[in-house]
Amino acid sequence: MLPFLRMGKGILLAYDQGLEHGPSKDFNEKSVDPAYILDIAEKGKFTGIIFQKGVAEKYYDGKLPLVIKVNGKTSLPKGEPVASQICSVKQAKALGAKAVGYTIYLGSAHENLMLCEFGRIQQEAHELGLAAIAWIYPRGEAVANDTAPEIVAYAARAGLEAGADAVKIKYTGDSDSFRWAVRSAGAARVFMSGGPKAPTDEAFLTQVKGAIDAGASGLAVGRNVWQHERPLKMAAALREIIFNGQSVEAALGKFAP
Amino acid sequence: MLPFLRMGKGILLAYDQGLEHGPSKDFNEKSVDPAYILDIAEKGKFTGIIFQKGVAEKYYDGKLPLVIKVNGKTSLPKGEPVASQICSVKQAKALGAKAVGYTIYLGSAHENLMLCEFGRIQQEAHELGLAAIAWIYPRGEAVANDTAPEIVAYAARAGLEAGADAVKIKYTGDSDSFRWAVRSAGAARVFMSGGPKAPTDEAFLTQVKGAIDAGASGLAVGRNVWQHERPLKMAAALREIIFNGQSVEAALGKFAP
Amino acid sequence: MLPFLRMGKGILLAYDQGLEHGPSKDFNEKSVDPAYILDIAEKGKFTGIIFQKGVAEKYYDGKLPLVIKVNGKTSLPKGEPVASQICSVKQAKALGAKAVGYTIYLGSAHENLMLCEFGRIQQEAHELGLAAIAWIYPRGEAVANDTAPEIVAYAARAGLEAGADAVKIKYTGDSDSFRWAVRSAGAARVFMSGGPKAPTDEAFLTQVKGAIDAGASGLAVGRNVWQHERPLKMAAALREIIFNGQSVEAALGKFAP
Amino acid sequence: MLPFLRMGKGILLAYDQGLEHGPSKDFNEKSVDPAYILDIAEKGKFTGIIFQKGVAEKYYDGKLPLVIKVNGKTSLPKGEPVASQICSVKQAKALGAKAVGYTIYLGSAHENLMLCEFGRIQQEAHELGLAAIAWIYPRGEAVANDTAPEIVAYAARAGLEAGADAVKIKYTGDSDSFRWAVRSAGAARVFMSGGPKAPTDEAFLTQVKGAIDAGASGLAVGRNVWQHERPLKMAAALREIIFNGQSVEAALGKFAP
Amino acid sequence: MLPFLRMGKGILLAYDQGLEHGPSKDFNEKSVDPAYILDIAEKGKFTGIIFQKGVAEKYYDGKLPLVIKVNGKTSLPKGEPVASQICSVKQAKALGAKAVGYTIYLGSAHENLMLCEFGRIQQEAHELGLAAIAWIYPRGEAVANDTAPEIVAYAARAGLEAGADAVKIKYTGDSDSFRWAVRSAGAARVFMSGGPKAPTDEAFLTQVKGAIDAGASGLAVGRNVWQHERPLKMAAALREIIFNGQSVEAALGKFAP
Repeated sequence: MLPFLRMGKGILLAYDQGLEHGPSKDFNEKSVDPAYILDIAEKGKFTGIIFQKGVAEKYYDGKLPLVIKVNGKTSLPKGEPVASQICSVKQAKALGAKAVGYTIYLGSAHENLMLCEFGRIQQEAHELGLAAIAWIYPRGEAVANDTAPEIVAYAARAGLEAGADAVKIKYTGDSDSFRWAVRSAGAARVFMSGGPKAPTDEAFLTQVKGAIDAGASGLAVGRNVWQHERPLKMAAALREIIFNGQSVEAALGKFAP
Repeated sequence: MLPFLRMGKGILLAYDQGLEHGPSKDFNEKSVDPAYILDIAEKGKFTGIIFQKGVAEKYYDGKLPLVIKVNGKTSLPKGEPVASQICSVKQAKALGAKAVGYTIYLGSAHENLMLCEFGRIQQEAHELGLAAIAWIYPRGEAVANDTAPEIVAYAARAGLEAGADAVKIKYTGDSDSFRWAVRSAGAARVFMSGGPKAPTDEAFLTQVKGAIDAGASGLAVGRNVWQHERPLKMAAALREIIFNGQSVEAALGKFAP
Repeated sequence: MLPFLRMGKGILLAYDQGLEHGPSKDFNEKSVDPAYILDIAEKGKFTGIIFQKGVAEKYYDGKLPLVIKVNGKTSLPKGEPVASQICSVKQAKALGAKAVGYTIYLGSAHENLMLCEFGRIQQEAHELGLAAIAWIYPRGEAVANDTAPEIVAYAARAGLEAGADAVKIKYTGDSDSFRWAVRSAGAARVFMSGGPKAPTDEAFLTQVKGAIDAGASGLAVGRNVWQHERPLKMAAALREIIFNGQSVEAALGKFAP
Repeated sequence: MLPFLRMGKGILLAYDQGLEHGPSKDFNEKSVDPAYILDIAEKGKFTGIIFQKGVAEKYYDGKLPLVIKVNGKTSLPKGEPVASQICSVKQAKALGAKAVGYTIYLGSAHENLMLCEFGRIQQEAHELGLAAIAWIYPRGEAVANDTAPEIVAYAARAGLEAGADAVKIKYTGDSDSFRWAVRSAGAARVFMSGGPKAPTDEAFLTQVKGAIDAGASGLAVGRNVWQHERPLKMAAALREIIFNGQSVEAALGKFAP
Repeated sequence: MLPFLRMGKGILLAYDQGLEHGPSKDFNEKSVDPAYILDIAEKGKFTGIIFQKGVAEKYYDGKLPLVIKVNGKTSLPKGEPVASQICSVKQAKALGAKAVGYTIYLGSAHENLMLCEFGRIQQEAHELGLAAIAWIYPRGEAVANDTAPEIVAYAARAGLEAGADAVKIKYTGDSDSFRWAVRSAGAARVFMSGGPKAPTDEAFLTQVKGAIDAGASGLAVGRNVWQHERPLKMAAALREIIFNGQSVEAALGKFAP
């Protein structure tokens, strides 16, 4: 059992965008503060929080299950993407993590480095009693469309075979095609990646509903919550869909005043 | 003696195509499920099953000898092929494996990385009591035709010299030229690689018969069995040829109703 | 608490320019001598001194907290910048260091090597009781302007997430935009990088004042002090701003005869 | 003293051509079989046999001193040549080896990798009581002619300085120029590399005689023996020259019926 | 104190040119023999001898302090220069070395590999009680003139900061500019690199005198001694300048019959 599930489902608050995209792209005066995010995570009843080790060291308060993202990169370098290990599994455990997360840029010219490093990390994680989650993002010159159903299913399957306990993958755009990705992941849990802020609440909730209907175990979401004007309302709406099996319409009701 | 032979012959069910080719290319609703494959392996009396570590961790039930493929890559990256280690020999053993498999892309610009890594893995495997199988696939810009008799024999020989207990190589197209590859492998056992689904059952069984007549110890097959409408019939036909020395015609009789 | 703060603020004398830029570019007959620099550091009441290990081994006298810069490069190579580890954390500790410093060229094609190496060094430093400071300098073909507010804030944030206890970053040019970088660094302390000798004392002190007003914890300065004709006067002026919260005008008064 | 000398001279039977050139290029039905080669080695009174680890594991019978070639490559990849370690020194010793052999492609863009790896292997070998032999082959874009006297002497000298107990180098074409290579090797023993099958027995024996007269300690030969119709006659002829100091004419007498 | 100084000065006989340049470029029948060189070193009262490990293993007799050069390369490869470690510090110590030498090609695209490797070697050397000498040679596409005063001073300073106990650098051409390099090296001792055979004895001795007058601790010389017709006379002349503070004219008197 993954350590961040509740009734078999999970909703993780992701907060490594500062490293991945830069603070000026994603944050404002409030969301730049990890304490603000932790507050949302707790009040919004998230089942886990995702930090890089530096944020965990300085802000994590032990109230929610912690996932440490153990590799990462900035958006600055051009060329084939690669992210290398920044935090050891041992250090993640010492910081209180229940799981480690690692990004594999599938299809990158450096894919083999990341598959290899994840393989080692997965073994260490299991030996130390942590879960291993793979962020699998097909990217690089060889990847034309990273949300094409075949490529998302490929990501899911690669995560299963490489030993991930859960995979974080992008939504394909419709529930039917995402179902194939979930099926391809087999016994590895599927978490939909929240991605950039959606144009409307309905649009985002419809994606989440599609993923859950397709069999996903949950959602790893950042910007669509903490960039929201009313993040706790969004969290409540997401919980309706993920834990209570409600419709998009019912979930939207959580925004009512 | 290899741990997955029966009367000196073997038939291994290979199932790492999800990582190597992507699920959408090779799988359907049934074959995407490792449990379906395990069921075929057991009912089809295979002498072993080949998984990546993630599938082994989550599905392997200990009923058949397990081979863990310890490296792998996707089909996405362009450029010279390379696959690095994903699963340690120690972890493979802990998962119950009796052997490890490793792909060497002979002729790749990264050939030396793989020969070196296989060398280390082979030593560890022997120290821990596991067999080491080399998937030897000549590939890359320097390789014009990967089923030319000379190149297949080169693959077989490289496997022997690098310390493989068994080599998995492609069929050359005829039994006479494949015999030279088997002879080049010397005391290393030769397993024909099943490859993509053949146009007809007869075509595939003729290849297998050719390989066995040439001295191969058996077959590592995936798609020609689990993409088949009647996989257990195909398994029965293959056993006729591999274990009972029967003709293609006799083997085809297994499909009779 | 960082080991080189006084009343929560710090002023570090940096002296690794001999390796980074070459002695002929930055030094004269006096400043080429580490003993001269140590003398300034002590008389100028700096809260710490920054050396490469070779200078520390041969000159450090234990009077001030020592920061050892554990990687470095020359200005000679063209191409994407990369600096690898020269001094182990263990060796830094043995030389008396209270902190280690490491440069990450964010945005370089080799960024992943440096993020990864810093991650390992940060863990070792914390295990041995040393602080880890990241010099974060966006540089390489992908970086158009390394003092643009967004890029400086990105540097600060990357330092926080990667686990730095303090980050050394360039000034953005005005206090308002630097405040965003300080905010992005969160609980990681921000030290403004002194940079090349400013055209006038007022110009430099105005930068420092802007950084301190924006929330920086201090300054890591080299050339603007030891290339100065009256380094101890400059040190006194800087202390006025950093520790006493004085204005630029008041600080300039320290130069009065 | 090298463990494969007899009266200060040696003749080694080399048999790693299957990996280096492919079986179809060098072998026939007989010579493809390591048992055939071992038989020649024993009956031909060779002072040692050279195998890759895989052949040693499966065929070596302990009757002759064993040299394990611990790196190797195929002839397939284009580009600057590099061969990495396949067999550890520890494993070589466990297989019964008295010496390890390692190829350095001097002048290759990857030369530094091989000089470095050989350096480590040489140390391990001496610590474990094995001799270290360097196959030094200048090759790559920077090398115009790998049998030019200067380049062969360079190979010999590089072997001495890198710590080889013996070097295997190509013949320069005449005894006088080869003498300089032998002299350059100093206290490292020189073994002439047999190379491809010579056009006539006399041509080959003349080369060997030239090498021995120049001070070589012996010969590492493969194809000129086991591709020969009468390998034991050739072995006898070679022994006449190497151990008994006979002329080419006298040695040719060994072929008389 | 460096282990190869006498009255604070040193003269080292360098003999790794066989690897660096090839024997045919630098050696003749006499100088190709390490025993000849050792004899010169002893009779010429050198304060140390510099060998690669292979020559040390086979020839070193313990009479003079030994410096082992622990990396090296041939002159064959084109492209950016790099030399990797061939001999471990532990092995150097076991061979009797009092110091290790390592070449850093400053400005090379691979500069970071060598700064990093030297850093590790320096630490090991000091832990084992050996001195660490850096041969610092600016070289590669980014270096236009490797004897320009600024670049030689940069080399000297980089050696100090990287932790060298002594640096071996090229002469700048005049004593005044070399003095700046010596000053830049600080507490690291400076040894002038002898370089290729000078056109006249006077020319070479004038260089050495200029270096000593500039504050150098001595000379590491090879070809200007052992390519000399009267090497012991040259050694005597050098000693006059280095140890006795004599003029070039006085030193030339040593060649008188």
